[in-house]
Parts: sequence; structure tokens; C-alpha cells
Amino acid sequence: MSETTTPEPTTVTVIGLGNLGQVLARTFLDQGHKVTVWNRSQDKADELVARGATLAATPAEAMGASDLVVICVLDYTTVRDLLTPAAGALAGRVVVNVTSGIPEAARELGAWITGQGAAYVDGAVYAIPQTVGTPAAFVLYSGDEDAFARYRTLLETLGSAEFAGSDAGLAAVHDVALLSGMYGMFAGFFQTVAVGGSAGIDATRITELLVRWLKEAIGALPGFAAEIDAGDYRTETSNMDINAVGLAHILTATRAQGVGVDLLAPLHALFERQVAEGHGAESLSRTIESLR
Amino acid sequence: MSETTTPEPTTVTVIGLGNLGQVLARTFLDQGHKVTVWNRSQDKADELVARGATLAATPAEAMGASDLVVICVLDYTTVRDLLTPAAGALAGRVVVNVTSGIPEAARELGAWITGQGAAYVDGAVYAIPQTVGTPAAFVLYSGDEDAFARYRTLLETLGSAEFAGSDAGLAAVHDVALLSGMYGMFAGFFQTVAVGGSAGIDATRITELLVRWLKEAIGALPGFAAEIDAGDYRTETSNMDINAVGLAHILTATRAQGVGVDLLAPLHALFERQVAEGHGAESLSRTIESLR
Repeated sequence: MSETTTPEPTTVTVIGLGNLGQVLARTFLDQGHKVTVWNRSQDKADELVARGATLAATPAEAMGASDLVVICVLDYTTVRDLLTPAAGALAGRVVVNVTSGIPEAARELGAWITGQGAAYVDGAVYAIPQTVGTPAAFVLYSGDEDAFARYRTLLETLGSAEFAGSDAGLAAVHDVALLSGMYGMFAGFFQTVAVGGSAGIDATRITELLVRWLKEAIGALPGFAAEIDAGDYRTETSNMDINAVGLAHILTATRAQGVGVDLLAPLHALFERQVAEGHGAESLSRTIESLR
Repeated sequence: MSETTTPEPTTVTVIGLGNLGQVLARTFLDQGHKVTVWNRSQDKADELVARGATLAATPAEAMGASDLVVICVLDYTTVRDLLTPAAGALAGRVVVNVTSGIPEAARELGAWITGQGAAYVDGAVYAIPQTVGTPAAFVLYSGDEDAFARYRTLLETLGSAEFAGSDAGLAAVHDVALLSGMYGMFAGFFQTVAVGGSAGIDATRITELLVRWLKEAIGALPGFAAEIDAGDYRTETSNMDINAVGLAHILTATRAQGVGVDLLAPLHALFERQVAEGHGAESLSRTIESLR
């Protein structure tokens, strides 16, 4: 693959000015690039135009204005609806699509865009609104590796950039996987706050403790992952038996506090399956076998 | 409440030498305290005795040896089974019980111990095995505040100590709440690894990315908590609609990868309830209202 280019002003179009699109366009402007934008509601472009962006009248005009087109809209159906009438403007361009979607949709879109003579790169942005465009954010890309390499430096202004592979669906697979992890953490957060609240502990206080505890407990994950990759679940510490009993106590206590357990009961069922299959003395990481 | 005492050698008994009990006893020994231990399987005490601990022949003898008795066994039933025949040895002592359990069990045990003329402090330890006895660990205590204050400095050698309140059940409420949060994160981790694995991404690699992403996404929790405490769910960023659609996509894509969605489907149901009740434009934090 080619080396990353030195950063120099380039032409870039941003299609879709939701929260993320706004930040992307602003970041590109701040870096000195020539930015063209388009959004269904034009007023979303006002601030960007005031900062020097050009507002295009149509998606086709927007795409025709730049070598690099970054798309960030609600879903893949919207992407196709916008691109289809603008297909003639695509040839020779690089389309980087950071719209969230499923792997199959990314692969289909990539094939269609490639068919129009453009290069396709799919991206998934990992950032909370406050950190887009900062080094805390990162973006995983997949698809056309040469196109990615050409714009890597530019793309790195959005957060650190990593290339996941040439299958255009890979960024979306990572997205599904990592957002699943985030939603699991959020589910746990809501349980924490609900249980705390049932005893009069305010959400802010219990969350302060939770944040501290999660940052610590995250430290257990790489060890679990290594056990899973090795398929070796022997452990001296936290086994399935202990966790099945512990989580059962938690569910009982949660119900006793008048709080529902719908979010955590399914995890307990996975633990119990491993215990029932005779793996009680093995590592908690063995839970993965209940999901396969 | 009284101020914390200066650290000076004291007599402390540790009942129960599982992973946590071992580390607690070793930490007390390292701090120069006179440590007496007891465990059902005596061989668990070998290393501690070699380091200077005294092995008691019975729980009663162990309790009689020290002013401070720390109990760390499997569950509250075991605590009662050990303490009942040793009840006569309890008067005048401080019992700190860090056995995991439910709030009601902690309150009942506290009442019984107080009835024997001892002071009761319930504790919940937040640490993975590698960090017990380090500043990364923390322990929440509740119950007899004077007794806690008397031994605070000693207890802080186990991790930073916080007092949650005089209701002996409060440490356990925190425990249920915070461990729920941890198990939610673990549930998310298993989904992440299962989805990644379905696309040939190894657990170690996807976990590396997940750890990075979770450390970032944790930053959203204090803001959610503030919204929940204020009961003000207005938002400009990540609303219920977006998350309901996003999580639905994730569930669809997860199924398409051949991975089950039992762990996350219940969260989606909570999102949908808020959307159905007309709160789609409000913050994701409003999910808590589905749990109340």
C-alpha cells in the first residue's frame, strides 16, 4: 500500500449535517480544506457557511465539488436515495461513508459505488459528541485501502484512523460489535442507577462510584479475551460457579428493591448453561460458549 | 464522628482465606499488624503462617484473638454458621464483614452481631484480584460509623475506604448496584466478542478496541446521571429515537452474523417503550423511566 500523504489543503464534501456531520465539516474547515456541504434542511449549514464552507444546492452539485466525499446521514437507505440521482457525479471520486449500518448494507453500497467508477471506504466513528475531532475519538475504516491511504492524514483529523480490511463490511462488523459492548455497559448503568435510586442514592453519586469501578473492572476484559482465543478456561480466580451464585444474589436483591431484572436475567441464564454443562470451575470468560 | 486514628500495630483476625481473604490477611501482615487467621481448609493458611500469621483452631479462638475481626467467606449463611457457635467471643469487638450478600442479609446479621455486644460494619470490596490492596481498589462500608472511624486507617490499606451510611444494608445496596453495572458491561463484552468472532476477528483484537471505546463511552454516564437526577431529559444529541433505530440495526446485524441477541434485546424493548410513550426526542438517559 502507498504511504500516507503529507497534509495539504484539499477539496472535501460533507453530505449530512447532523451532530457528527457538523463536527466533521467544522474540523475540515479548521484544517484549512475547501469544504462543500449539503444537508436536506439547509439551515443546518448556516454556521459552516459563515466559517467559509460552500453550500451546494443538490447532492450531485456537492459531490461534483470535491475529490473526497464524506457521507454521514441517518441510514443506508438515505445514502442510496441521495446518491442514486447523483450517480453521474461519482466517477473518479473517493466516497467515505460513516453512516451507521449493517455489514451487508455496507458491502452492497460499496459494490454499487465501485460500479459508478468511484472508490468506496466505509467508516465507523467511535466518539461521544464532545470528543469527535479529538485524539480520544477513533474511526475504523474498511474497503478501498489505496483510497484510505490517500486520505489517511486528512481522515486522522477526525480522530485516530485504523484500517480494518478490504471487505467493505468490516467497519460495520466492528461497529455492531463495539456498539453492542457500549449498549451492554449502558444497560448495566441503568440497572445501577435504578437499584441505587430504590435506596435513595442519587444517580450522580452512584454513577461516580460506577465510573470508578468500571474503569477498574475493564481491566479484566483482556484476560478474558486471551482465555477465549486460547480456548483455555482454567482459572484460579473468578469461576462460573461463583459468578452464577453472585449474579443470582444480585437478581434476588434487585427484585427485593422493587427493580426489574429483565436486563440482567439473560446473562444469568448463560452462566447457568455453562454450570449445567459441567463447567462451573472454569473461568467466567467461558460464558462466550453459551453465545456461540 | 471521630477523626481517623494514626496507623499503629493492632490485632486483626481474618476469617475466610479465599482469594480476597488471602490478600487481605497478607496486606495486614505487610502493614505490621498482629494477624490471626482461620479457614475451613487449613492449608490455605500455610503461606500466611510462614509470613507470621497465627492459625487459630476454631472460629471462636480466631475471634477471641483480635479487637478487629474481618470476615470474608462465600455467603451470609456461612457467616452465621461460623459466628453462631462463637457468639460468646464477640462482645466488645468490631466485626467487619466483606462477604458479598443482599442488603436484607446484611441488616439481619448486623442486628444479631450488635445483639452480642459487638459493633458491626458491612463492607463491599471493589477490586479485581490483581488490584486488591492497591489504591485502585476501593471499599464501601456501612453500619457502625464510630467503629469504622476507629479502624479507617487500617481498612484503607485494603483500598480507599468510603462510608456509605449507618444502615448496615447500604454497602450491600451499593454492591448490588455496582456489580449490576459490571455485569452489564460483561454482557456487552460477550456480545462484542461473539459478533467479532463471527467475522473472524479474534477476541484479543476486538477487546483492545472495545476497551478503548468503553473508556471513551464511560464519559457519557455522568451526563446521563445528571439528567436523571434533574428529571430533565431534553437533549440536542443522542435521543431515544436514534438509539432505538441504532440498536434495532445492531440486533438485526447480530442475528445476520448468526449470533444471539438475548442479552441486548431487553434493552431495546426499554427504548421502544419510551418511544411509544412519546419520548423519542428526549435523551437516552430516559431509559431509566422504563425501569421504574
